[in-house]
Amino acid sequence: MSAYRRTYADRAKQHVNPAAKSLLETIERKQSNLCVSVDVTSFNDFLSIIDAVGPYVSLIKTHVDIIEDFEPSLILRLQELSAKHDFLIFEDRKFADIGNTVALQYSSGVHKIATWSHITNAHPVPGPSIIRGLAAVGLPLGRGLLLLAEMSTAGALARGAYTEDAVRMARGARDFVIGFIAQRRMEGVGLAEGEKRNEAEDFLVLSPGVGLDVTGDGMGQQYRTPEQVVSESGCDIIIVGRGIYGKLGNVDIGEVQRQAERYRKAGWDAYLQRLN
Amino acid sequence: MSAYRRTYADRAKQHVNPAAKSLLETIERKQSNLCVSVDVTSFNDFLSIIDAVGPYVSLIKTHVDIIEDFEPSLILRLQELSAKHDFLIFEDRKFADIGNTVALQYSSGVHKIATWSHITNAHPVPGPSIIRGLAAVGLPLGRGLLLLAEMSTAGALARGAYTEDAVRMARGARDFVIGFIAQRRMEGVGLAEGEKRNEAEDFLVLSPGVGLDVTGDGMGQQYRTPEQVVSESGCDIIIVGRGIYGKLGNVDIGEVQRQAERYRKAGWDAYLQRLN
Repeated sequence: MSAYRRTYADRAKQHVNPAAKSLLETIERKQSNLCVSVDVTSFNDFLSIIDAVGPYVSLIKTHVDIIEDFEPSLILRLQELSAKHDFLIFEDRKFADIGNTVALQYSSGVHKIATWSHITNAHPVPGPSIIRGLAAVGLPLGRGLLLLAEMSTAGALARGAYTEDAVRMARGARDFVIGFIAQRRMEGVGLAEGEKRNEAEDFLVLSPGVGLDVTGDGMGQQYRTPEQVVSESGCDIIIVGRGIYGKLGNVDIGEVQRQAERYRKAGWDAYLQRLN
Repeated sequence: MSAYRRTYADRAKQHVNPAAKSLLETIERKQSNLCVSVDVTSFNDFLSIIDAVGPYVSLIKTHVDIIEDFEPSLILRLQELSAKHDFLIFEDRKFADIGNTVALQYSSGVHKIATWSHITNAHPVPGPSIIRGLAAVGLPLGRGLLLLAEMSTAGALARGAYTEDAVRMARGARDFVIGFIAQRRMEGVGLAEGEKRNEAEDFLVLSPGVGLDVTGDGMGQQYRTPEQVVSESGCDIIIVGRGIYGKLGNVDIGEVQRQAERYRKAGWDAYLQRLN
């Protein structure tokens, strides 16, 4: 049976990568396939939003490189919130360089992403060496990698043969590549002529560009509903950002939590609908 | 006459983007089309190497996100060296996200790249919104952007239709996109059927993967000589890293300078050969 017809709990049992297994278990335990993307530039906003949405999510997506007043203590606070609210961390770094460089970017520098982020992602554009470079750092730490097989922006070049190559690269590194950033399932993509689908293949599909109220941000981002993303397209996790915490200014914690619960429920309902 | 048949000085006169104009003037003034890529993780090594190679280069390529002991004073020191030795700075960030996110990554966070890096680069994979997002920050500061139209790694997906789309995206934003990271000239690439080359088009082509002694690094990077890159393939600037400063440990300044001069001369000779 194809992965997306099975329960998260069932899939967790068969994943060998620790980050993938833990994420699937968390989704099941919290009945949440919601990932909140926290794209803010202040340390305090960052932690306030995560503390507010923590109970409703299985995964928090970060861009630590946009935080003005970043310091190592921020990571400690983030890890405390991860433990308190039971979610995993996904630094949305979009690595996109040669193997040697990404290994340094992942392990070193001010941010030391590999030491705290359970999951990160990379563009397949440099070829398989990017996976080897990141795996050399991340595998010993039990980390997982997502490849960007598609993008939700207008005019994106991640399509067609590019997407097929990305999926083939992932199939060549299944111990470390746990899934994709994409708009749909990838089971049938990138197969050679006459090659059959491997029914045991189970890549997680995380989908950005999810919104209940909006259709675009004026900067090329396009939105779909949780039902379209999870039930119709078979994606596993919805990624939502400003749809939950708005334009900022003064963060209204109560309103942020109402929106987070609204998206959690919409994502979970779409999953239940898909199983039936 | 195609750009690559003209002198750097002549091309400098016609460029409107301040970063492109300044880079071409610097190349001519120093008789150097050499860019040294400084991929080290310590503040002291970083500054020592740049101080050593400074006299021989027109451009220094950085990855500030791999420097362990990064602090704002490092940027001040880098800017002092840029003034002392007369070179421009190129943070090789390889932006690869949606417009809204890259604008924050470029302007904000610990590194504040836009405030000090004359030139940066981006993958075209998210579509034209990535250029709009970066231009909103960089154009008012007189910055220039390079698009990664090709990559020199084995199995890279930046080829064929992807490269053509990249070049078309660049043509749509010529005030900000000053050139490409690529292996060859792009004048004839991405033209519609029957569309003629625009002889006035002048994108700078910067080429990594240049080496006089080596053919590969075991992590997927492949090397070509300055003559192949500049004279045969028509690229404008050679990017060299470990070929000049070796494996590190104790940096031998004299040896680093001998190598830098050796590459500067090889790059310049290849340019003179191309003009004839």
